[in-house]
Amino acid sequence: MTIRHIVAWKLAASDEATRSEHSESVISALTALKGLVPEIQHITVGAGVVEGNWDLALIVDVADLAALDAYQNHPAHQAVLPLVRSVVSDRVAVDIDLSALAR
Amino acid sequence: MTIRHIVAWKLAASDEATRSEHSESVISALTALKGLVPEIQHITVGAGVVEGNWDLALIVDVADLAALDAYQNHPAHQAVLPLVRSVVSDRVAVDIDLSALAR
Repeated sequence: MTIRHIVAWKLAASDEATRSEHSESVISALTALKGLVPEIQHITVGAGVVEGNWDLALIVDVADLAALDAYQNHPAHQAVLPLVRSVVSDRVAVDIDLSALAR
Repeated sequence: MTIRHIVAWKLAASDEATRSEHSESVISALTALKGLVPEIQHITVGAGVVEGNWDLALIVDVADLAALDAYQNHPAHQAVLPLVRSVVSDRVAVDIDLSALAR
């Protein structure tokens, strides 16, 4: 089984300079989790590049739902949440089981 | 450059049997695009497995923004949209440039 945890965010700021600064700080903080949280098999974090869609996306692959729980409760992940929550206005998450898919 | 087009949906139905039927029909219709739309480098479509998060996710990798446009306007993709729109209540999309990321 592999669980793919997918999160999308909308940035709260409206001016371009602040949005870019917030986007970069979230991307670097989340990308750094790769070396800190052992449950992370693969992580991709990026800024949205299409006008009108949302602004940030995170894709994290973990072994199973228990590993997803461990990732979300890991101190390093918990430490990033205040930053993320301080700069976003909306969040959506979907978790899919890659082993259940015809890909 | 590789653009990763990420879409999350919330299903509209509330009863489990209908939700499961709608989820499966969307997943098979979108997964079938792989053989129909040449711009698709990779496609993953799955049902959400965590209570409280959203219900369906699509991840499509294409070469660039022009290929994303071609994918979205391809007749086979257009043909799936009425089905998807008929069973979802909400949609969020983020498009990230994988080549711009430290992964």
